[in-house]
Amino acid sequence: MIDYTRHLSAAALHFQESAIRKTGALAATVPDLISFAAGYPSAEMFPWDEIQDISNGLLASRDSGVLQYAATRGYPPLVEQLVGHLNTGGVATTPDQYIITTGSQQGLDLAGRVLLNPGDAVLVELPAYSGAVAAFHNLQATLVGIEQDTDGLSIEGLDAAVARLRAAGVRPRFVYVTPNFQNPSGVLMSQPRRRALLDAAARLDLLILEDDPYGSLFFEDVASAEDTLPIKAHDTEGRVIYLGTISKTLVPGFRVGWMVSPPAIAQRVEIAKQAIDLHSGIFDQRIVHAALAQGVVARLAPQLRAHYMAKRTVMEESLFDRLGDRVRWTQPRGGFFLWVEFAPDIDDRVLFEHAVKQRVSFVIGSAFYVNGGGHQHARLSFSAPSHDRIREGVLRLGSALDSVADAP
Amino acid sequence: MIDYTRHLSAAALHFQESAIRKTGALAATVPDLISFAAGYPSAEMFPWDEIQDISNGLLASRDSGVLQYAATRGYPPLVEQLVGHLNTGGVATTPDQYIITTGSQQGLDLAGRVLLNPGDAVLVELPAYSGAVAAFHNLQATLVGIEQDTDGLSIEGLDAAVARLRAAGVRPRFVYVTPNFQNPSGVLMSQPRRRALLDAAARLDLLILEDDPYGSLFFEDVASAEDTLPIKAHDTEGRVIYLGTISKTLVPGFRVGWMVSPPAIAQRVEIAKQAIDLHSGIFDQRIVHAALAQGVVARLAPQLRAHYMAKRTVMEESLFDRLGDRVRWTQPRGGFFLWVEFAPDIDDRVLFEHAVKQRVSFVIGSAFYVNGGGHQHARLSFSAPSHDRIREGVLRLGSALDSVADAP
Repeated sequence: MIDYTRHLSAAALHFQESAIRKTGALAATVPDLISFAAGYPSAEMFPWDEIQDISNGLLASRDSGVLQYAATRGYPPLVEQLVGHLNTGGVATTPDQYIITTGSQQGLDLAGRVLLNPGDAVLVELPAYSGAVAAFHNLQATLVGIEQDTDGLSIEGLDAAVARLRAAGVRPRFVYVTPNFQNPSGVLMSQPRRRALLDAAARLDLLILEDDPYGSLFFEDVASAEDTLPIKAHDTEGRVIYLGTISKTLVPGFRVGWMVSPPAIAQRVEIAKQAIDLHSGIFDQRIVHAALAQGVVARLAPQLRAHYMAKRTVMEESLFDRLGDRVRWTQPRGGFFLWVEFAPDIDDRVLFEHAVKQRVSFVIGSAFYVNGGGHQHARLSFSAPSHDRIREGVLRLGSALDSVADAP
Repeated sequence: MIDYTRHLSAAALHFQESAIRKTGALAATVPDLISFAAGYPSAEMFPWDEIQDISNGLLASRDSGVLQYAATRGYPPLVEQLVGHLNTGGVATTPDQYIITTGSQQGLDLAGRVLLNPGDAVLVELPAYSGAVAAFHNLQATLVGIEQDTDGLSIEGLDAAVARLRAAGVRPRFVYVTPNFQNPSGVLMSQPRRRALLDAAARLDLLILEDDPYGSLFFEDVASAEDTLPIKAHDTEGRVIYLGTISKTLVPGFRVGWMVSPPAIAQRVEIAKQAIDLHSGIFDQRIVHAALAQGVVARLAPQLRAHYMAKRTVMEESLFDRLGDRVRWTQPRGGFFLWVEFAPDIDDRVLFEHAVKQRVSFVIGSAFYVNGGGHQHARLSFSAPSHDRIREGVLRLGSALDSVADAP
């Protein structure tokens, strides 16, 4: 019998398993589980007819470029579409800044590969998207959490953390932020805070990694497109690496995202990606290109905003009705998540065990905290379940809280 | 102006650009270039009708699983199909050993991520697939070349290299081999050599990374399926990590490959892939699953064997007619490549410059040598061009050789 431990890399010995994926695997084993765990987009909103027409047209063309090996940077007409798409959103970019990635998750890993040495520090929000934390952790980075308030990441906290790290001889490389409807907290970073963060990055000589999967999914009752203007829009100096994706605004199954970075970094990312996977799936890219070019994504956006806003309202009303006195949250102004806080005597891991017995799941708050905190929190995704399932799931969550309280 | 060099990781400062991709980019700039460079499959053999039917059926089903987020390990029914597919090929595996990768290139990177620390050594053939070399190099591995003869990698060479490395305090981690119609040399490793390599790996406590993109593309005039039985088929101890792909036997644009490794390693690879890209494209996987399940891949295989065998014959005849006295090669018994050797006074880089002027390209031999050698070689791909273009390309190559000889 071979002892494979001896054969594993130092990084592999300490890889961090995805809490979200782990919870997802669990969901498959519990009958009739209502999942508030995975941040899946609503499949009923997938534009099936349009995708089928586009797919058919591409395959009927017999254009070998639809199924052949392709360029590492991505399908050039897709990049042109994205330049126009971001331009419409107020972000001026050029094609030489783009790399098409296999979803924005790959952008996180690629940024890490190009920017991080083992031991370097990445500054992240408290809480932060656990998939990003895992990507940087798996590259042996040191993760440092910065508090955020309702306007976003604390600049004072950032200054203090950087000073502390430098005094300790650790090199902070970049700040990772999700300014629009952050995963998991739902926080919308204010525009003044975005500018302050950019100023701080320049002052501290840090790069900013801006992850923006939810930007176009603002809720029109409490937010507007102007509120979501990316940090990248203010970036005259080339300090921001911006990640976008089609996963939440079209479908996730295609795995098409984009990374927009200064050309000198994009060139390194291209070389990295050559050896990592040659290129992202070209059939996927061609479909996404056509969906953008034919206006499918633009037509869908207001429908998605209304769809997710309605689900958010259903979840808020259900929580208020069933658990109003036992949970607190800040109303999400966009995105997929409602970030709840329980009373201090509740531990997220204990509640989770009780919740699964009640056939409802969520992601434990502590999965998003790099400092060991977050045990009074849970991330509830309202994006995928129907209104009725959201209501039923909240009832079950209430039963789970009851049963925790009743436990000896 | 930001100096991004200061922001790059140590690895990124020394990333190795793909010689093949670089030559491919060049091809786009030269009008009417005949490319013997890229190992592209022949687009005229793509089963367009079948893929269109399958794609239509999947999208018409409105099954959300076709376009939704999916499991990191891959679509389970695809894995089941692959278990059967490999079993038919004489390799007994179980589903828990599989990870579906974004092409086999991702398998190379994943293997490196899980097995290599910076400075560790990877043993590769002389010559070896440059994309694999780049993947390991970019993870800061030390690449050590082992001579091969017409039966494959030299076991004596392997023993000597491992002894040398260990004496120098360097840890050799695995041997990377492509036993079936190696890229670039076309060598088919003999079955006795495969067993000897497995024995040597056990004796030296190395793992084997077996890359098998061309196994089913043997040429029936000089080889048979039995000759291509993977090393993995003999692996009772769990020493072999096997990489397969659909890129050469269906289409490359889907980016679907598979990595078969001992469960303890597969489990680490799964966790790595969670943070690297969540999962490979599920629409692609669903199409590939259906193509395997409906027998499309099996029906296509003999047609592909005949197609590429005919092209190999055309290239050999053309080379013999035009350049018979100036190049040498061993007849490929499968795969996409003809590996030619020129007279010692020819340098591959000089010839390449003259070739591009004659509107023909190839990959320089030295791109495949980790020891600085290979300058009398070139890799000629016969897979993509038509018979006429192969003939014309060889004439142009002849003109390039003439012009090198005439140069002052």
